[in-house]
Amino acid sequence: MNSRLVYRFGPGIADGDKSMKALLGGKGSNLAEMSSIGLPVPPGFTITTEVCKTYNEQGANWPDGLADQVRDGIAHVEQAMGLAFGDPKNPLLVSVRSGAAVSMPGMMDTVLNLGINDKVVEGIAEKTGNQRFAYDAYRRFIDMFGDVVMGVHHANFEHAIDTLKQERGVSSDLELSADDLMILVNRYKAIYRKKTGHMFPEDPFDQLTFAINAVFESWNSSRAKKYRTINRITGLIGTAVNVQAMVYGNMGETSGTGVCFTRNPSTGEKKLYGEYLVNAQGEDVVAGIRTPAPIAEMASKFEGPYHELVETAERLEQHYQNMQDIEFTIQEGKLYMLQTRNGKRTGRAALRIAAEMVDEGLVSRETAVRDLVEPRHLDQMLHPQFKNVNGYRDRVMATGLPASPGAAVGQVVFDADVAEDWRADGKKVILVRIETSPEDVGGMDAAEGILTSRGGMTSHAAVVARGWGKPCVAGCDDIVINYKTHSFTNGTVSVKEGDWISINGTTGEVVVGAEELREPSVGGNFSTFMSWVDEFRSMRVRTNADTPDDAKKAIELGAEGIGLCRTEHMFFEGDRILNIRAMILAEDPKERREALRGLLPHQKADFLGIFRAMAGKPVTIRLLDPPLHEFLPHDQKGQEQMASDLGVSVDVIKAKVAALDEINPMLGHRGCRLGVTYPSITRMQTRAILEAAVELAAEGVAVHPEIMVPLAGTVEEFVNQKAIVQSVAKEVFDEKGRSVDFLIGTMIEIPRAALTADAIAKEADFFSFGTNDLTQLTYGYSRDDAGRFLPYYVSEKILPNDPFQVLDRVGVGQLVKMGTERGRGARSGLKVGICGEHGGEPSSVEFCYEVGMDYVSCSPFRVPIARLAAAQAEMAAKRSNGQANATAAKEAAASV
Amino acid sequence: MNSRLVYRFGPGIADGDKSMKALLGGKGSNLAEMSSIGLPVPPGFTITTEVCKTYNEQGANWPDGLADQVRDGIAHVEQAMGLAFGDPKNPLLVSVRSGAAVSMPGMMDTVLNLGINDKVVEGIAEKTGNQRFAYDAYRRFIDMFGDVVMGVHHANFEHAIDTLKQERGVSSDLELSADDLMILVNRYKAIYRKKTGHMFPEDPFDQLTFAINAVFESWNSSRAKKYRTINRITGLIGTAVNVQAMVYGNMGETSGTGVCFTRNPSTGEKKLYGEYLVNAQGEDVVAGIRTPAPIAEMASKFEGPYHELVETAERLEQHYQNMQDIEFTIQEGKLYMLQTRNGKRTGRAALRIAAEMVDEGLVSRETAVRDLVEPRHLDQMLHPQFKNVNGYRDRVMATGLPASPGAAVGQVVFDADVAEDWRADGKKVILVRIETSPEDVGGMDAAEGILTSRGGMTSHAAVVARGWGKPCVAGCDDIVINYKTHSFTNGTVSVKEGDWISINGTTGEVVVGAEELREPSVGGNFSTFMSWVDEFRSMRVRTNADTPDDAKKAIELGAEGIGLCRTEHMFFEGDRILNIRAMILAEDPKERREALRGLLPHQKADFLGIFRAMAGKPVTIRLLDPPLHEFLPHDQKGQEQMASDLGVSVDVIKAKVAALDEINPMLGHRGCRLGVTYPSITRMQTRAILEAAVELAAEGVAVHPEIMVPLAGTVEEFVNQKAIVQSVAKEVFDEKGRSVDFLIGTMIEIPRAALTADAIAKEADFFSFGTNDLTQLTYGYSRDDAGRFLPYYVSEKILPNDPFQVLDRVGVGQLVKMGTERGRGARSGLKVGICGEHGGEPSSVEFCYEVGMDYVSCSPFRVPIARLAAAQAEMAAKRSNGQANATAAKEAAASV
Repeated sequence: MNSRLVYRFGPGIADGDKSMKALLGGKGSNLAEMSSIGLPVPPGFTITTEVCKTYNEQGANWPDGLADQVRDGIAHVEQAMGLAFGDPKNPLLVSVRSGAAVSMPGMMDTVLNLGINDKVVEGIAEKTGNQRFAYDAYRRFIDMFGDVVMGVHHANFEHAIDTLKQERGVSSDLELSADDLMILVNRYKAIYRKKTGHMFPEDPFDQLTFAINAVFESWNSSRAKKYRTINRITGLIGTAVNVQAMVYGNMGETSGTGVCFTRNPSTGEKKLYGEYLVNAQGEDVVAGIRTPAPIAEMASKFEGPYHELVETAERLEQHYQNMQDIEFTIQEGKLYMLQTRNGKRTGRAALRIAAEMVDEGLVSRETAVRDLVEPRHLDQMLHPQFKNVNGYRDRVMATGLPASPGAAVGQVVFDADVAEDWRADGKKVILVRIETSPEDVGGMDAAEGILTSRGGMTSHAAVVARGWGKPCVAGCDDIVINYKTHSFTNGTVSVKEGDWISINGTTGEVVVGAEELREPSVGGNFSTFMSWVDEFRSMRVRTNADTPDDAKKAIELGAEGIGLCRTEHMFFEGDRILNIRAMILAEDPKERREALRGLLPHQKADFLGIFRAMAGKPVTIRLLDPPLHEFLPHDQKGQEQMASDLGVSVDVIKAKVAALDEINPMLGHRGCRLGVTYPSITRMQTRAILEAAVELAAEGVAVHPEIMVPLAGTVEEFVNQKAIVQSVAKEVFDEKGRSVDFLIGTMIEIPRAALTADAIAKEADFFSFGTNDLTQLTYGYSRDDAGRFLPYYVSEKILPNDPFQVLDRVGVGQLVKMGTERGRGARSGLKVGICGEHGGEPSSVEFCYEVGMDYVSCSPFRVPIARLAAAQAEMAAKRSNGQANATAAKEAAASV
Repeated sequence: MNSRLVYRFGPGIADGDKSMKALLGGKGSNLAEMSSIGLPVPPGFTITTEVCKTYNEQGANWPDGLADQVRDGIAHVEQAMGLAFGDPKNPLLVSVRSGAAVSMPGMMDTVLNLGINDKVVEGIAEKTGNQRFAYDAYRRFIDMFGDVVMGVHHANFEHAIDTLKQERGVSSDLELSADDLMILVNRYKAIYRKKTGHMFPEDPFDQLTFAINAVFESWNSSRAKKYRTINRITGLIGTAVNVQAMVYGNMGETSGTGVCFTRNPSTGEKKLYGEYLVNAQGEDVVAGIRTPAPIAEMASKFEGPYHELVETAERLEQHYQNMQDIEFTIQEGKLYMLQTRNGKRTGRAALRIAAEMVDEGLVSRETAVRDLVEPRHLDQMLHPQFKNVNGYRDRVMATGLPASPGAAVGQVVFDADVAEDWRADGKKVILVRIETSPEDVGGMDAAEGILTSRGGMTSHAAVVARGWGKPCVAGCDDIVINYKTHSFTNGTVSVKEGDWISINGTTGEVVVGAEELREPSVGGNFSTFMSWVDEFRSMRVRTNADTPDDAKKAIELGAEGIGLCRTEHMFFEGDRILNIRAMILAEDPKERREALRGLLPHQKADFLGIFRAMAGKPVTIRLLDPPLHEFLPHDQKGQEQMASDLGVSVDVIKAKVAALDEINPMLGHRGCRLGVTYPSITRMQTRAILEAAVELAAEGVAVHPEIMVPLAGTVEEFVNQKAIVQSVAKEVFDEKGRSVDFLIGTMIEIPRAALTADAIAKEADFFSFGTNDLTQLTYGYSRDDAGRFLPYYVSEKILPNDPFQVLDRVGVGQLVKMGTERGRGARSGLKVGICGEHGGEPSSVEFCYEVGMDYVSCSPFRVPIARLAAAQAEMAAKRSNGQANATAAKEAAASV
């Protein structure tokens, strides 16, 4: 243990700094940091976490020297404040707080006003000229000390004050007089004595000692230990204790309190933004009982402190290289900084602040990219938002899953065909469905936004909407949809077809009526910032795109290739669906091949378009993945139509639908299991891809197809499909007298594929982790059904997040890591990427970088987010490597 | 390379033995072994695998010395046979065969009669007095040599013989005269010359050289390489070549051929059992053109050879310590042994042979357990079988999955209630259903056997039937069942309600009409043998049992505890289902608790019965696992009944059924996800278990409950459930004033649980691998739906086996191993078992032993099989350890 047990801080002095989090805790190191740059922080001191450890290990005894160092600490505070601890004439009061290196509920909270006793209270009354204030502070101190330090439940004191109010016939605490409060102090002391068996400690140093010990002991409370277990917090030795002078903003007209941002958090404008109150404590600003004044008006009331605040704000921005959110108090004309932290801001503000701070020379581009803009800020800029940021909240009728970000406004329709019709009539519509299916894509496209009452973040509606950047609220089980009456209701409000609603896909809110929208903005600061982002990024970002339009949009947003082109999304357009349905009804391989021949020109045309749009960037094309029954109509009307289209009886179709029905379709006959059992499908798709590629190559267009086999669980399946692809390639190249380079790889989305990645990598040119399915299988969750328990699991902390949104590093991540390492072990330089929904989620992107992936792939509108997340992950890794190297260098130097 | 390139064998001489498989191949080492014990094997020699390697590495050149050693080999054969290679007077003919250490299709097959040329053929004609025989042999040799050695396709020769037959106006080869065959030889030679560009080699040594080289080169044929890749055969250096003297059983009345077993393979009786033919080749016996005579009659015809055969049989049994299946030929009064191998036998025979060989002092108990009885032999003894083993085959109308072994006979019914009624009337019935559900268990119990047209080896029907030891054929998609017409058909034969059928659950066959049955027999040799088995077994065998009756049956069959007691199987009996349904309909936790209170006494009574039956053996009880919708009726009638039973409207029930409907129920709201979201279920079940345990303990009955949390995927879920169990335990023990020791563990059946087994083991007392679900999730296969492609995958070798039957060591096994190792790493001595269907499958049991499990658990009727498999696994491991130790010792000695 260090011989220094106590670290002082306060105006002009700081024994520690922000690097000493392990020793001083988060709070202590921050206070030290603020002090070290000369900010007017109320003075105090921090007792180290090592002392806590020793105390708890050595039977609740203070280590040698602690008592002296605490007294020195108090002396430092007394001197800085010009006050004396326990001196009735000029009393110093302090707060005592716990603070470990990681914020941790479950430990002892705050004790305020420590240092009051029967004599001191009178001194305060005299000094402030306010006896009521003094005794109110005293009784509050006894309550807090009794409850927090000694475990006398707050309810006991509450009961006493209630009783007194009844005796006095009053209903509010404020109606109690100073005399009443003096009586209350005595009653509180009696309660304290009865419950603890001890007199309330009069000696401020006794008070302080008890409070410090209570903090130490709270480290091992069952609540704190449980919290650490649940949150897997390990490696900490104890909590620090922060003792700090109390300052008061309510000591008259020369006192006050306020909060402010160093720049405008909504617009980013460089100007102090905040508010203040005269003669008030911080909680009064928050409570909203009195209306605070704008910060700019403070200059007239508190001229000196205001200028000091402006100057402090500049110094803070320089020091922290970020916009700051400040809390301050003015006590009798003197400014104290209570807290500073990076300020929260809107996307618009974040981008402007980043751009201007770089222009001002305040921060480097690197810092701007690393610290000043969060991925979610970009998201706000990419989609429409409600103009009235908060005003709509009382019109929210339901909240579902925020399935695809952005806001949308339109008239409600319940049918995809109706959506298309109304749209053709120039109306704006919101398509409201229990759930959507591939048959609804026309209406989804026509709608401004989509609302479903069933399905999760990766339901059909959610995936398609995200792909298009169209707002979507999914799985909104607050509402019940009735297709017959063309209406939906939350039980109190009903919405009919044609009514206007607004949906917020960023928050999941459904709002009655038409909100005004702010349109997206990806020029100006956005594009400047994104160009900086790419300077600090090596991991590539691709997109999931199924059409030339999607591909073009993604390139605009910075995509460097297609990581997932789902061929089946092309199957629903026009008369293609008839071909695929004929293929499904085929009785033998010959009929099947014929039906597929009809599909070939369409598929080929799609690939021609996509290859052209991607202009030489790599395009990963996944072979047919979904179970065949998804292509068949499940309703009577659709089945009749199909029967007439194909000239067969409805019974034949019904029989086929029944035959293809599966109990667990997610685990059924899909992915390469289709390609293996129906090789002609793989043959047709390969031919379409490679004919398109060869023809474009002949025109001089660069093409880089990467053919991807879905859902392989065994190397044998992959080898089977690879052989088909290679044989078709040979045919096509022979026919055309020209060849193109292409890769054949596989998705890793079945746990067994990750477990046998070494064998698969010997055969495959690349891996793309399909983390949607991998998450379903690793957890055994159906993403379509998990809504039954997932929200509860997250709220009860059984899961830290929805694993379909944030990649589970502990379990699923192990398989991703294992798959990557084993794959690269068998084939060095194996190209590895991810194409699940996680590819656009910042924390997951960071994980992908750490695992060493070559690229992530996400829907077009998440591409900028992934680019930023990739850059930030790389910077974080370099920084921590840098630190590791620095530490190693230091250790090496020390050992010489 | 060894300087010895050629190893001789033949009567009285053997340069090699059976330990030299790597060098001589499987066939070569066997021939050497037979020779080494003095059997009259036709003489020959083996060229080593090392030679093959050198040949292929050194540009198809023979290594130095090979030519000389081959000539020495031929000289050895000439001397032993009293014949000379290429000598027309006394010609030696030989066969040439490949033979690697592992049997491997794709390499060169056999060439017979090598050594014939234009002169030799005349010598043979003269010697045998049969010109036709000689020329027929010659033309067959040219065909075989041309095809196998030189790649001249057999069809060419076939075409020539067809042409000649047309010219002669005959239809059968036998109608061609000796002269015709002489012409044919010339035509064959012309074909050979045309196709190869060479004359047919006249020099027998040239013939031999070509044939040997062809074998060497076939090692690297694409077919052989592909076979090795697919079957993951590695570490082999090449194939050996076996050259052996031809012997003929068709050289007149003093020649003959036969096959026999050293004991009766049906009954096990100790007496030669087989048949022979005079003046015939081996293929004549097999072809069945002539009717062979019983082997006992041979004594009169071939007195000397017969006695030699009897003596040889004794020697073989002594040497191989097993019943042998022998092929022999007598050439002009001299007996030659062509082959010997362990004989296949019925279960009855296997047990009798084992018992008698031990009695005779021929083998030790250890050998008997290790080698003489296979697990499937026990299976035959545990279930009824068709008495007429083969005669029923022409009445087989369909074949499904062999879902639960044994044969059953009864009248067809299609409804579970009808089954119960008919049974009550004293009828024997077979319940035929598309698939079964828990509502059918009454009828299943009443039936002799069960036939379903849908569902796999782990479908409801299969699992329940196996648990009861009741024959079941499942997933029989050869038939279509029509509930309306009360009939089923395979397209040609229709079977109506009341018709008699027989099913064979061991083979999956469905037979029209009533077969006679042989009843099971687990006394006598069976029980003697099983008592020996347990002497060589340390891994425990438990059973999956849900009722006291099952538990008792399992104990009779040797179960040492219950590894899986499925509490929900108790929920369908009597009025319990009403309580569980009321629980499901409950609107709030209070209603739910009340409904569960009604269930408590029933559950408790069940546990009292089971604990009593198990009399102190450990009982692992799994908390509620299936999704709740399984307990609701899905048909109108059932829903109406439920509505009236519970006094609610049918609409309420329909709404609940719809609300609980899941797209992928396998991945849905089940297992501990129920216990977490409805803690009152876990509380009720824990209370039932522990109240029963405490009450029995008070009576002095030993109880060892092990409470098992199903489907945990995160340690947090387990901790949540454990806390509930512990709090209920405290309540119960406080109430009863007495406690019992119990364990709380979990199933490992979610991949994520295996991946995070270390964290879970810190909390859990035991693991039980649920390999059914683990296999579903690791592969992403629904066992209910995988019938669409699994059979195809197995037939195409994409999978080596159905992974639901035989545990997949490559993928699923990795997770089992990882889970066990990580679990034991975090908690040494963690108890680990398996309770999936694999727990009764021999190869899987072996894997469980290798992983170090404490026990396997399987359905009662598989307990003996698991006991034997466990003993055999342990013996195999000891033997291979012994060998490893011996090798290590040898190496250590060599290095001194």
